[in-house]
Amino acid sequence: MDLRGQLKIKPDRLMKDLRDLAKIGKLTTGVSRTSLSNADLEARHWLLKRMADAGLKSTIDTVGNVHGQINTDAKSVIIGSHTDSVPVGGWLDGSLGVIYGLEIARTVLEAGYENTIGIHAISFMDEEGTYLACLGSRKFCQELSDDEIADGQNPAGEQLAHALDRAGLTSNPEIFLDSNAHIAYLEAHIEQGPRLEAERKAIGIVTGIVGIRRFRLEIRGEADHAGTVPMSMRKDAGTAAIRFSHRFLETVEGCKGADSVWNVGFVNFEPGAANVVPAKAELLYEIRDLDAVVLDRMESAIHDLCETANQTGLLQYEITKTIDITPSAMDRALSNNILDAAKDIGSPHMMMPSGAGHDAMVFARHIPSAMLFIPSIKGKSHSEAEDTSEKDIIVGCQVLAGSIEGIFST
Amino acid sequence: MDLRGQLKIKPDRLMKDLRDLAKIGKLTTGVSRTSLSNADLEARHWLLKRMADAGLKSTIDTVGNVHGQINTDAKSVIIGSHTDSVPVGGWLDGSLGVIYGLEIARTVLEAGYENTIGIHAISFMDEEGTYLACLGSRKFCQELSDDEIADGQNPAGEQLAHALDRAGLTSNPEIFLDSNAHIAYLEAHIEQGPRLEAERKAIGIVTGIVGIRRFRLEIRGEADHAGTVPMSMRKDAGTAAIRFSHRFLETVEGCKGADSVWNVGFVNFEPGAANVVPAKAELLYEIRDLDAVVLDRMESAIHDLCETANQTGLLQYEITKTIDITPSAMDRALSNNILDAAKDIGSPHMMMPSGAGHDAMVFARHIPSAMLFIPSIKGKSHSEAEDTSEKDIIVGCQVLAGSIEGIFST
Repeated sequence: MDLRGQLKIKPDRLMKDLRDLAKIGKLTTGVSRTSLSNADLEARHWLLKRMADAGLKSTIDTVGNVHGQINTDAKSVIIGSHTDSVPVGGWLDGSLGVIYGLEIARTVLEAGYENTIGIHAISFMDEEGTYLACLGSRKFCQELSDDEIADGQNPAGEQLAHALDRAGLTSNPEIFLDSNAHIAYLEAHIEQGPRLEAERKAIGIVTGIVGIRRFRLEIRGEADHAGTVPMSMRKDAGTAAIRFSHRFLETVEGCKGADSVWNVGFVNFEPGAANVVPAKAELLYEIRDLDAVVLDRMESAIHDLCETANQTGLLQYEITKTIDITPSAMDRALSNNILDAAKDIGSPHMMMPSGAGHDAMVFARHIPSAMLFIPSIKGKSHSEAEDTSEKDIIVGCQVLAGSIEGIFST
Repeated sequence: MDLRGQLKIKPDRLMKDLRDLAKIGKLTTGVSRTSLSNADLEARHWLLKRMADAGLKSTIDTVGNVHGQINTDAKSVIIGSHTDSVPVGGWLDGSLGVIYGLEIARTVLEAGYENTIGIHAISFMDEEGTYLACLGSRKFCQELSDDEIADGQNPAGEQLAHALDRAGLTSNPEIFLDSNAHIAYLEAHIEQGPRLEAERKAIGIVTGIVGIRRFRLEIRGEADHAGTVPMSMRKDAGTAAIRFSHRFLETVEGCKGADSVWNVGFVNFEPGAANVVPAKAELLYEIRDLDAVVLDRMESAIHDLCETANQTGLLQYEITKTIDITPSAMDRALSNNILDAAKDIGSPHMMMPSGAGHDAMVFARHIPSAMLFIPSIKGKSHSEAEDTSEKDIIVGCQVLAGSIEGIFST
């Protein structure tokens, strides 16, 4: 059966749901719905009711994932994202993909394809990592150990187990990924970067989610009076940090891949006074790429820099890897479904990596997964300035619906 | 009259006084005697009594300077330094030069030269700047306005005027520099650096006290997600700070003088997270040299760097000069007296700049001034680790006494 052109989403309904959801935990233009906060739980119960009202089989599980299903007996596609936010977040980050799932399930029901198309729409808990990043998707995919849940706590020091209990979730049913029934994972998200806007494309088809490696560099020298100690007699951790970081920038530039990015986001000198030669410098370096081979090359170059620097023996340089997230490739066939759907409605589109992490990163380890991006105005996210034009929001949902048509066409 | 060889200081008495003074405000090996603290005032009253007991005319003035004079009717040499300390200081910083003054005055009296040699020994208030750097010497030299005293306060927020009143000083006599009677200023001090130890010299004859210029660099860019924004689209204040600082280091190295030193002692990136492109960087640069021409050349090069950096227009660079202290030349004839005294007793010696500020900096603006340094073990100061061998302490005092012989010989 060729389903192309059968699923017509309803723009007004989509926009109303997004705007209603944005009222929960509302700030000036953004939202504050950190995981398991009152606002987050209110949003999840609102969603549960919206799903039930639309005729979906709706459930909240033990970690607060909200599920809405149609055609539960057949193969189904998961359409997921998250309704929790960072402390001062935007109204679309996560919520967009969740409401797309609801809207597409409703559209399937209205079009009378509930026996042909299986949809499992989910809002995962704590993608933003208030307690534990991607908690909900990792729990659903059975990646999460009891120890990890026991260790989770929020910045205020509340234990995750306590918060789940407080939210009244612990006696809820457990719902897990079923790799026989769940044939694919689709996630739509705002880009959170400036590329689609700059290239004037409405749709980004994500080739993969970058791997992230983070390094802490500590340089130990000796504090000295910055007036009385000649330059040649200093063990100056500050100068060493500037020189090392300059070589770091040159080195990663020299061995980067096409989509590599890097950052020196934090630096601190101790004791930190204008008239004292720094005794210690601490820096955080981060590198990201889709390709583990490129990341290996960069990491190896960083270790070489460190080794060379240590050879003088004057100062001690120590590199510690603090984060190592493997790149996640998106499924090519599934991505082609999105590509075809974008072409079908004549929407300008481009292939691009995701520089940020998403629940899709977890799913890519288990079932074919793909992502669709829509533009972020001025590339802003994780702030109240986050926004996307209504036109782009609507196009994104219709393209995602089109990819569902493609998946279930035979 | 040739006075050479007439003043023999008494090592045991000198060391006992230094060790007794170090008991006041004692920490483990160092002292805490911040200006106008109870310990500082106790030390000043102890000194006043030691001076009176030794037969000096002793007085505390309105700002707590302790004066001990012999032969007040004739020309006299001021031997000064300070007994206040930084919060966790060493036992010799300042105290050394003060007790040298007392010991030399005693020696003059014992040798029967009280009608030939005039000595005015002083412990100045607050050289370390708890309330106002060089308060005592600037007051004595009539450099201090009432406004400056009114503005002075310590880190705990106590007003200087209040502290002077609390210490019971305000009704004391005022004592000022008399440029007819005071023919020279001599200050002995620990080096606070590693050069004398490294060169195995017991005596440093100070050529001048370096000028200090301090600059605050602020770079303003834009915060961005360090994963989603391509390198070419960032306004990265962190990378800019690394590149600018690297050019700063190369530039000052390229236009330095023989004794120039510089420091990048403080740096901060905002918001300061590994995964956020820095929106803002703030750095403190400091340059020091004896020669204002060299400082001008360095400063001009820094402004050029800033102007060049601003030409791209992508980020904003702003340099602000926050401190500008003029270099102070020491008097050559007076320094030669110290040099001759060192030669007379066969003490290894060298000429060197002072990289740190001292009360002598104030006096150099008014009367011929000179300084003598003795070695600091491992170059340490402003810490409990500060120390000097007893042998070096004794040699230093004898050389300073020798220079007094030279000044008053006819």
